[in-house]
Amino acid sequence: MSVKAASAPITSPICPIRVEEDAILLLDQRKLPDAVEYFDATRLDDMCVAISDMAVRGAPAIGVAAALGLAAEARRLAAQAASDTDFIESLRRAKEHLQATRPTAVNLRWGTEEIFSLACDNRRAALADLAELLFARAKRMIQEDIRINMAIGEHGAQLIDGDSSVLTHCNAGALATCGWGTALGVIRSAARRGTKLRVFVDETRPRQQGARLTVWELLQDGITPTLITDSAAGYLMSRGQIDLVIVGADRIASNGDTANKIGTYTLAVLCRAHHIPFYVAAPLSTIDPTISTGKQIPIEERSPDEVTTVGGVPICPPGTAVLNPAFDVTPARLITGIITEAGILRRPYRGSIGRALRSGPTPGR
Amino acid sequence: MSVKAASAPITSPICPIRVEEDAILLLDQRKLPDAVEYFDATRLDDMCVAISDMAVRGAPAIGVAAALGLAAEARRLAAQAASDTDFIESLRRAKEHLQATRPTAVNLRWGTEEIFSLACDNRRAALADLAELLFARAKRMIQEDIRINMAIGEHGAQLIDGDSSVLTHCNAGALATCGWGTALGVIRSAARRGTKLRVFVDETRPRQQGARLTVWELLQDGITPTLITDSAAGYLMSRGQIDLVIVGADRIASNGDTANKIGTYTLAVLCRAHHIPFYVAAPLSTIDPTISTGKQIPIEERSPDEVTTVGGVPICPPGTAVLNPAFDVTPARLITGIITEAGILRRPYRGSIGRALRSGPTPGR
Repeated sequence: MSVKAASAPITSPICPIRVEEDAILLLDQRKLPDAVEYFDATRLDDMCVAISDMAVRGAPAIGVAAALGLAAEARRLAAQAASDTDFIESLRRAKEHLQATRPTAVNLRWGTEEIFSLACDNRRAALADLAELLFARAKRMIQEDIRINMAIGEHGAQLIDGDSSVLTHCNAGALATCGWGTALGVIRSAARRGTKLRVFVDETRPRQQGARLTVWELLQDGITPTLITDSAAGYLMSRGQIDLVIVGADRIASNGDTANKIGTYTLAVLCRAHHIPFYVAAPLSTIDPTISTGKQIPIEERSPDEVTTVGGVPICPPGTAVLNPAFDVTPARLITGIITEAGILRRPYRGSIGRALRSGPTPGR
Repeated sequence: MSVKAASAPITSPICPIRVEEDAILLLDQRKLPDAVEYFDATRLDDMCVAISDMAVRGAPAIGVAAALGLAAEARRLAAQAASDTDFIESLRRAKEHLQATRPTAVNLRWGTEEIFSLACDNRRAALADLAELLFARAKRMIQEDIRINMAIGEHGAQLIDGDSSVLTHCNAGALATCGWGTALGVIRSAARRGTKLRVFVDETRPRQQGARLTVWELLQDGITPTLITDSAAGYLMSRGQIDLVIVGADRIASNGDTANKIGTYTLAVLCRAHHIPFYVAAPLSTIDPTISTGKQIPIEERSPDEVTTVGGVPICPPGTAVLNPAFDVTPARLITGIITEAGILRRPYRGSIGRALRSGPTPGR
């Protein structure tokens, strides 16, 4: 299948972000796979909770969700603001509130800055018109994101030979984006081409996005994955059972160092030890050109409860001390390629990333 | 503290295997840390269930538990057997029944063969006397195992400098032995010497022996560990936060290749990538001189339920396909040293293991 033309509406099998009239509805990923429920995140505070509590998660998805949240806030502010200065100042505070919800994924900053700078550029417009402009821009990101994912999928699908075994970590799927997915988009595109492949999915402790979300998502698509614990990946590699690893990204430094879900770095080290290609799939909006290496990427530490309990059930003695980093950084030297909508970037990444950002087709950048 | 003389009874803070009159009582590790309960495994079938269902686990512990189980069965057989041939044949079937419960840990074979060969050697004795001889031999293994662990602890403690951070995986502690522990015995011995150390514990999915058992056990000893997910070990290493990794073993081939809990191999690969010493701590009874490399070690695959549920709570869609290997094999080249009761064995292991087995102080070998 080809990437659809920009004018055609795109439907994805899974819609994690829906805009219905004035409401922003998020497929509540805390409840999957037990329940398919949408969470109303139209109000700014609710959107902040949805992001920090991971009702919506995945770098591209939270970028678009936050942009929509900011645009919805702009609508409310337009009705209340005493002046355009007041409006812009209130919008700035709302933006900062959203950006503070999670520190690692750069798309959150990208999405909100996109809306905020559009507001600044058009501050002389009537506030009601300006708010609608912002909301329309944010809404358009949904289709743009799906289109970008499908381009990533098309580029990446070329890397997968028939009868391959692919391992992925966490969820970099439709659920982590506005549809289709990045790493899972590649798998989905390969499957749609008729490529026979076996998909292994890491559980991805502590929040089990692999077991809960990626397995669910692939089953929706008719792909039957095999679930393994995070610790089993090395064993499978040592027995020649993994041909390729593809993961998503939360932030990519301009040298190619990549922050992604905790455990990604371990997979990359294992891939190097076993001569297995290790690919990152991400939109160009995940690249942070303001930082030169991964050392500058802030790593979120999340609540000990994520580690000490599973589904509300304690798994260790009360009061156990915990360290719970949500992400790790994989150095560029361990990454075989970065699959973007502008093609597959190769080492040295400083050059290939720079060229892609200058000429890349990311809409809205 | 020194290793106590062979004649003195040794008390361990945690007694996973107790013999009370005729009963064999196993600290039920399925219920820890929520409840401290003993499971009566005096009957052969109950002992088999206890081992296969992991009420008792850890290679040294199941070796001794199985030996006791076989000796208890010998007592029953002695009262029923028509002849010494009948007795030996029935005992052989019981031994095979016990050995079939779990395939990877070689101590299970060691413990049962020890009892069975003692029976064969003494088959001309009165059966009642013979059974008592076997039971006394099995019971003696408890003290021997603790003494061996303490010797391992003393040797290993020399490897730990003050202010070190040590990471361990799964549970190779008092709970995995008859007391004191192998990898945790080293940590315990170092702590008793006054060595200041920080202990990180991997959760160890799927059965969470790290979170459930190792954390509990260290807290009993006044050592406060920090729990991490299995995926976080690489991140900590990349930030220089781990100085040493010590794990136990379920079977060691004569070239030093070591089977241990799934995830051990990944830690060894990570250690190599970060130039961190990686030690295995195990009694000589864990070495299988009949196999030349780790390729010959059978790897147990356990129920998918261990992966798909945590504490009875499902974590993925119903019917998810699962691969659940319980162990992996770490090649000898990644192992810095093997800490045994005969000292710390170094590469090349074929030589050092051979020498240790020929001259080693393992009682009863």
